[in-house]
Amino acid sequence: MPKQRRAIERRSALIESAALVFERDGFAESSLTDIARQADSTTGAIYFYFPAGKHSFALAVIEEQKRRTLEALHSELTSDAGFAGVVRASLGVVDLLLADPVIRAGIRLTLEQNSLATDTARFYREWIEALELTYEGAGRKGELAEGFTPRAMSRATLSYFTGMHLLSEIVDDWSGLYDDALNMWRVLIGAGASEEHRATLLETASKLFQPPQPPLNRRSLPARMKDPSAQPA
Amino acid sequence: MPKQRRAIERRSALIESAALVFERDGFAESSLTDIARQADSTTGAIYFYFPAGKHSFALAVIEEQKRRTLEALHSELTSDAGFAGVVRASLGVVDLLLADPVIRAGIRLTLEQNSLATDTARFYREWIEALELTYEGAGRKGELAEGFTPRAMSRATLSYFTGMHLLSEIVDDWSGLYDDALNMWRVLIGAGASEEHRATLLETASKLFQPPQPPLNRRSLPARMKDPSAQPA
Repeated sequence: MPKQRRAIERRSALIESAALVFERDGFAESSLTDIARQADSTTGAIYFYFPAGKHSFALAVIEEQKRRTLEALHSELTSDAGFAGVVRASLGVVDLLLADPVIRAGIRLTLEQNSLATDTARFYREWIEALELTYEGAGRKGELAEGFTPRAMSRATLSYFTGMHLLSEIVDDWSGLYDDALNMWRVLIGAGASEEHRATLLETASKLFQPPQPPLNRRSLPARMKDPSAQPA
Repeated sequence: MPKQRRAIERRSALIESAALVFERDGFAESSLTDIARQADSTTGAIYFYFPAGKHSFALAVIEEQKRRTLEALHSELTSDAGFAGVVRASLGVVDLLLADPVIRAGIRLTLEQNSLATDTARFYREWIEALELTYEGAGRKGELAEGFTPRAMSRATLSYFTGMHLLSEIVDDWSGLYDDALNMWRVLIGAGASEEHRATLLETASKLFQPPQPPLNRRSLPARMKDPSAQPA
């Protein structure tokens, strides 16, 4: 294996290890020693890949979370995906949350703010814009209820979704995430969808979030996530 | 002033100082030295009141946040306050968030989890139950839309509210909190209130969250919050 390819692979594996530690302990209580132990490595070896230490690890996890999330969603959050596109996108994120510790760690890190606050604000603004674009398309198709602007629906969706997965983790250790997501769409569609499209959208949501919910993947990652060739150029 | 009263006052003042530091820096990056500096004191003097250091400070801030929040809400979240009681309760929390750094610090600490995770879960479960009780009363008055259970409305409200104030802080530094709260109620009432009561509830929400939003109090506290005689027995 060429040297550079191996370095990319090694770096990617370190990010996975860091994510497991950050997810378990949060930024505050994670140490480079923990990350090294999780990766079966040494802090000395780790500094080679992340010279700025814990902080650069956190940024790398957030970057990776963002990349994987956008990869899963870019086909759903488009100007012509309509209201159902947002529902499908939320299923994509829910499934990523359950399957991938990097996603859970990245979101946890962005909510812990501190030195990462500026990046967090940018990250959420980008989400608001992507959702707004999709709801604008929904509006053109006549799918929005009167009085609900694309901007209002975008903020409603992101607020509710953020609080929902937090509560699901805190109160139920993720076990009711599909139920909670369906409940969310019954509220968001119930208020924000036009009467003409409401029943169809509710049916779509019910089908997408039909039990059984996939199991929570605590420790390992789906194979494709480990493939370094999936890294961005 | 009697010695014990003075000790209570001193402890209370230390909690305020700790809250300002936790709010600014989060649990991870706060130190006892910072708290001592904020309180014009020394770490030695502080240990007298909080022998277990930073962790016991965090728990004290969370306890105080909880006490003040419950004090503001206990008259609204009752079995006969109805749907409007939940709307008024949310205004109470929104106003506390803007006015009181202890509230903001407490919520921030509960969301950072880690060693506080067990208390956080209990805290949120208590909220879900208090909201459910109130929505059950709303159901008896015929205020709930068909198909929305008190439990579903309770989780919807807490999820949306939690995500809403987080997003408001991250994206707008709290400046649009009243707008966001009104938007939230347009969604929750739009979906969850019965047709018969919808218009009246929307009017109530519009009046309660009418601009101007009170200014964000960054540094000091309303006088009554500082009164140590307001401490629980």
